[in-house]
Amino acid sequence: MLQSKLFAKTLHEDPKDEISINAKLLSRAGFIHKLMAGAYQYLPLGLRTLVNIENIIREEMNKLGANEVLMPALHPKEYWEKTGRFHGFDALFKVVSHFDKEFALAPTHEESIVPLVQRSPLSYKDFPFALYQIQTKFRDEPRAKSGLLRGREFRMKDLYSFHISEESLHTYYELVADVYTRLFLRLGLKTLRVKASGGTFSKYSDEFQVVVPTGEDVIFVADSGEAFNGELMPQHLRSKEVGSIVEHEGKKWAVRKSTEVGNIFKLYTKYSKPFDLSVLLKDGAKGEILMGCYGIGSSRIMGTVVEVHHDERGIIWPQQIAPFQVHLLSLADAGKAAEFSKTLYERIVDMGVSILYDDRSDRTAGEKFADADLIGIPIRAVVSERTTTAGKVEIKKRSEDTIRLLSEQELFEVLLKK
Amino acid sequence: MLQSKLFAKTLHEDPKDEISINAKLLSRAGFIHKLMAGAYQYLPLGLRTLVNIENIIREEMNKLGANEVLMPALHPKEYWEKTGRFHGFDALFKVVSHFDKEFALAPTHEESIVPLVQRSPLSYKDFPFALYQIQTKFRDEPRAKSGLLRGREFRMKDLYSFHISEESLHTYYELVADVYTRLFLRLGLKTLRVKASGGTFSKYSDEFQVVVPTGEDVIFVADSGEAFNGELMPQHLRSKEVGSIVEHEGKKWAVRKSTEVGNIFKLYTKYSKPFDLSVLLKDGAKGEILMGCYGIGSSRIMGTVVEVHHDERGIIWPQQIAPFQVHLLSLADAGKAAEFSKTLYERIVDMGVSILYDDRSDRTAGEKFADADLIGIPIRAVVSERTTTAGKVEIKKRSEDTIRLLSEQELFEVLLKK
Repeated sequence: MLQSKLFAKTLHEDPKDEISINAKLLSRAGFIHKLMAGAYQYLPLGLRTLVNIENIIREEMNKLGANEVLMPALHPKEYWEKTGRFHGFDALFKVVSHFDKEFALAPTHEESIVPLVQRSPLSYKDFPFALYQIQTKFRDEPRAKSGLLRGREFRMKDLYSFHISEESLHTYYELVADVYTRLFLRLGLKTLRVKASGGTFSKYSDEFQVVVPTGEDVIFVADSGEAFNGELMPQHLRSKEVGSIVEHEGKKWAVRKSTEVGNIFKLYTKYSKPFDLSVLLKDGAKGEILMGCYGIGSSRIMGTVVEVHHDERGIIWPQQIAPFQVHLLSLADAGKAAEFSKTLYERIVDMGVSILYDDRSDRTAGEKFADADLIGIPIRAVVSERTTTAGKVEIKKRSEDTIRLLSEQELFEVLLKK
Repeated sequence: MLQSKLFAKTLHEDPKDEISINAKLLSRAGFIHKLMAGAYQYLPLGLRTLVNIENIIREEMNKLGANEVLMPALHPKEYWEKTGRFHGFDALFKVVSHFDKEFALAPTHEESIVPLVQRSPLSYKDFPFALYQIQTKFRDEPRAKSGLLRGREFRMKDLYSFHISEESLHTYYELVADVYTRLFLRLGLKTLRVKASGGTFSKYSDEFQVVVPTGEDVIFVADSGEAFNGELMPQHLRSKEVGSIVEHEGKKWAVRKSTEVGNIFKLYTKYSKPFDLSVLLKDGAKGEILMGCYGIGSSRIMGTVVEVHHDERGIIWPQQIAPFQVHLLSLADAGKAAEFSKTLYERIVDMGVSILYDDRSDRTAGEKFADADLIGIPIRAVVSERTTTAGKVEIKKRSEDTIRLLSEQELFEVLLKK
């Protein structure tokens, strides 16, 4: 893609109305634009990154054998009344119609997936199975000041599993937990599996938390890797300073700040029961259906990655989710070097490697370097008159300081190895 | 994909609460499920089809040089008040927050794209440019009885162009009109470009209409191809029977029923003015910005394709948007034929051709044939003991009656030629 044709203008200063690192950097680098608190517009760079994140999530869900669906955000009030959540769910937005109707604007989709499964002609032989979607969700957040970390409107993957035995639910739950840990690593995030409160039907749920100084949660982590959300610790421990080590039940726990990027719940019959969702078992008896639900906030992932991977100059994208793999800066407007950079750009496009080509003739070299650091594409390739005369390209990884002069052929080898 | 693992159960009867052909067939074939009037859940087959449609639209938008973005559905009330549409747009859903706020749930995105462009540091050299998104939209529809043709929640591509001269707006508008005609053909729809009322700022807008007996609109079509929406014809002609020929202004016009699948508008400064969107021109003067907007309802396309391409047995998907390219039916549960069909399935997967493999052992041959006709995948391949003994596969196109016996090699050639 030619940078001169990309709708992505970098800003010289942090937006005045942002306080979080992710919103400041993503706005300045031209990835997102705030329409209002908690609702962001994804510009081309931001959308490419979001799509990369969601495609990795999709791949892992498909490998699990889950089927992808897409459900509406607008839900009938009746279904939310059935589960007691039309008035019981604090963050539920309500939609008013001219035609004397009210709808729920869904923050989660149990009230939609259960009627869907109920309407399907299923046999006990179809169990277990799982459905997921990657979709836009809505929450009536009082404070939405954390950029992509806490949105009134945000992107999410939600997976729901259906079982006719507890054993099957437990097995699937552990399988998803394993997939999650690996999935987050693919997205560039090292997570801890953290026990959290389980709601009505289960003692614990599990959260996947990324330890980061700007995190909103406080977790307690033992040497063994065992971890608990602060909400499960005794009152007198919860107020301990971050970084301190506390003793509890004969173990030592480090107090850490963290950001939740995923959570998984055993719902048992919490949502299947209100809808009387059941199936005829092999012996002809009516069998109840147990459910699990498994969330990942894909826009939240994008914000968390920026909170974790940045320096004073800008974002440092993990290769797997970066909007482009290579950022080629041309420092010459005419002559051999300009021709060479154009040819190099076309060859890298032909290789199927995603590349942003800074072909802008109205920017100084300094501005181009600063923009490249801010945007954070993993590999920066610079073509100038000097490098062209030497028959080389100047290569620098965003995550490293070393600058290397490579021949075109050596650069291709680097790109193909990645 | 194995059909036994696909969440897509066909239904024996039309759903009782559907009256449109598209909703009846898509529900029975397991593509969609109605959550409530005007809001559908896309099951795996439906989502695959929708994604195919949207990817073709995306390709054509990218070829136009437009940049893809993604905007929120939740908009601040203030922006809609600025354009007079918070109370002036009948079908606008309003969202109520606990925190004493009201939002618009967007049916269209002028009130979002203009503030976005306004906030970008643009130079006159950046014009013209165009931004688009493929996203979910909401409309407070009184009657939502036409399946995917009229939704309270639906999918749409909306493109917005920005210009600093009228000539540039006119040129781009005609360019998009040409792209649209070709784009709809790729989606399996022959459209007419139909003049319709232009709103405040333009004499006409253009609609892209598909002539179909179940259409909601009435259009008047001249032999020359020229066409007008009924709303632009004199009152006494509008009530003429569909199929009749009328005379008007010295020309003969055929009265036709049709469904609108896209529309394009010259907005001029209708939305840029309320936001005081402008740019410094080369001579230092403040230049006004002209806009065009260009919509395609991608979920509506899916419904329209079914209205146009079906027979008494089910849907007949155009190859380009079909959920799978090949539907392989195995009529043997064991032995050589079962082995052969499994190997054939794997080979076609390896070729990169999308294939649905009916491996269900609890269905009769008749049930499998009926499901294949209902689902409407372009090529049906049948493996039975008889065909296996003959070293052949039985091939039938959904759109044709001819059944052919092909060798595996001949089948591969057919698939690669497509």
